[in-house]
Amino acid sequence: MRFLRNRFSTLKPYHSDYLTEGTILNSNESPYEVPQALKDYMKENIDKLLVNRYPDTDSSKLIAAISKAYDVEAEQVTCGVGSDELIDCILASCLDEDDQVLIPYPSFSMYSEFTLLNNGMGIKVPLKSDFTYDIEAMKKVIEEKQPKVIFICNPNNPTGCIMPKEEIEAILKLSKGLVIVDEAYEDFASQPISVIPLINQYDNLIVLRTFSKAYALAGARVGYAIACKELIDLINTVKPPYNLNMFTQLAATWAIEHREIFKANAKKIISQRAYVEEGLKTLGFKTYPSESNFIWLEMEDDYFDALRERKIYIRKMAVENKNYYRITIGTPEENEILLTALKELKK
Amino acid sequence: MRFLRNRFSTLKPYHSDYLTEGTILNSNESPYEVPQALKDYMKENIDKLLVNRYPDTDSSKLIAAISKAYDVEAEQVTCGVGSDELIDCILASCLDEDDQVLIPYPSFSMYSEFTLLNNGMGIKVPLKSDFTYDIEAMKKVIEEKQPKVIFICNPNNPTGCIMPKEEIEAILKLSKGLVIVDEAYEDFASQPISVIPLINQYDNLIVLRTFSKAYALAGARVGYAIACKELIDLINTVKPPYNLNMFTQLAATWAIEHREIFKANAKKIISQRAYVEEGLKTLGFKTYPSESNFIWLEMEDDYFDALRERKIYIRKMAVENKNYYRITIGTPEENEILLTALKELKK
Repeated sequence: MRFLRNRFSTLKPYHSDYLTEGTILNSNESPYEVPQALKDYMKENIDKLLVNRYPDTDSSKLIAAISKAYDVEAEQVTCGVGSDELIDCILASCLDEDDQVLIPYPSFSMYSEFTLLNNGMGIKVPLKSDFTYDIEAMKKVIEEKQPKVIFICNPNNPTGCIMPKEEIEAILKLSKGLVIVDEAYEDFASQPISVIPLINQYDNLIVLRTFSKAYALAGARVGYAIACKELIDLINTVKPPYNLNMFTQLAATWAIEHREIFKANAKKIISQRAYVEEGLKTLGFKTYPSESNFIWLEMEDDYFDALRERKIYIRKMAVENKNYYRITIGTPEENEILLTALKELKK
Repeated sequence: MRFLRNRFSTLKPYHSDYLTEGTILNSNESPYEVPQALKDYMKENIDKLLVNRYPDTDSSKLIAAISKAYDVEAEQVTCGVGSDELIDCILASCLDEDDQVLIPYPSFSMYSEFTLLNNGMGIKVPLKSDFTYDIEAMKKVIEEKQPKVIFICNPNNPTGCIMPKEEIEAILKLSKGLVIVDEAYEDFASQPISVIPLINQYDNLIVLRTFSKAYALAGARVGYAIACKELIDLINTVKPPYNLNMFTQLAATWAIEHREIFKANAKKIISQRAYVEEGLKTLGFKTYPSESNFIWLEMEDDYFDALRERKIYIRKMAVENKNYYRITIGTPEENEILLTALKELKK
């Protein structure tokens, strides 16, 4: 493409079908709509909102609410257009050309994308054959190469495995670079596994969280980073001004202030996850243990299209030329639709 | 700062006070609130919005409305979080380290910021002493250096000058690089000066527009680019997925579909601009002709603080160590408050 940097020649414009009907189990969204109280709050505020003015560039009210929820200082929090924007900012702030970035594989695709876009070199460290973290391999790479940035998605998207806190601490101690622990799915872990309590102890730790999963606000596009003040300043140094619009700031502030509602929904998902896993196993599919709101599994390729024909949407992902599937846990009704369809297709 | 790239050592986290009261004439926003009909539309839709789902990553409805409004193809439009995000994407897509970018000076500060963030080298071409474009100097730089990207803010922020269409065409013909014509303030020009009709003729032209000025949606954060399909693909190749949240897509779609309302407000601003300019001149201030929703002027430094004490906010900007001021045109009432205050301060 004319004008495009040679370095980006493998990139293509991102596209994803915008699905509005059917059984949507392909994007790890919350299957539960936000409460009517949040909608009412938005509606009341829209009348008062001076949307002709720029939003608060510091997202102060939202950050105050987040810092209260996690018992951290406001200066230890910053917000972005999804955690995507924060991943981009972190890499932009510190990567010189060809600096190395440790990326487990498979994991969230944006780690590699933004590493490429920010002129870094991704070092992919494969998960083990059971799709859990290969911690020894990661440590070896860290000792030998000291990457500028290390990504740990915990629980990991798309495989659902987790890394224990002690191992994250071992990596934090071993690494001279930034360690990014992406906790987008932490609300779905059976036990709390967040390393937010460690931010005052490790000055190379950044924790990422999002409103797109348990908080049911994927449509609002907002994520946040929690870290020591110096690392938040680092992100803010390259973060674009006025990144979060007023509507999103409002919705997310309400959500974090009413987090018990969303936590209750996460509990329902956890319990449904066990049910869906059991159902998939009973049908003979190989599933992998998940601490998240999705299940990673193996199935014959025909099922994907057959489900799609029935307007049941799941995600197909190739790992080393073999296809795997990721199914988001839906409402009990949606999970039933999925399992029933698979049962029929099995016949 | 630890971890920060040396290249960025001059950068500081952006901060701007979030003003919610007083006479706010410092950010070139529309002084007119959006119509109640837009708020009602938002409120109706919020009940239906599945905000637990990701937004349409392609902003299809919004892009369809924009393409209809300007009589271009949908594939000739893309949207960003303000035109800021599009400036960033354009530079990211094409700049290799130390590639040159022509930036008139003074102009919109984000051209330089994003050039630095994307490893480019800005070549500042000063405006003439009357704060109009130095077109000959720009042409000379283009002929000699062929910058990868050339910015033309038309009308120019903060000085209000314009570049005639013929001169833009001359630059388009002369340049092998991308020519970005930022028309954020085009709605306030006395005569239409948009070069959107030229996009099918020049395959190195990108026009940027925004909803933050005439369209009174600064709080929603949305801008768009119009260009030939190949250049839109170029931007989309590096544009982050799901960049525009659902609320913003809704609000902007309504606004462009009802653009006559906003155009009528722009006309009021144009007429008030003449009134404010006359008032400032009468008070003895040196003003520069403006085709935008602000006036660039010289005044003694004391006025800025004295106005601020009266909660009248204008923008101070240093050019070559001398302070100049930019005053946004407000409602007739706000303009009266400004002129009355200055009259009293003159005594």
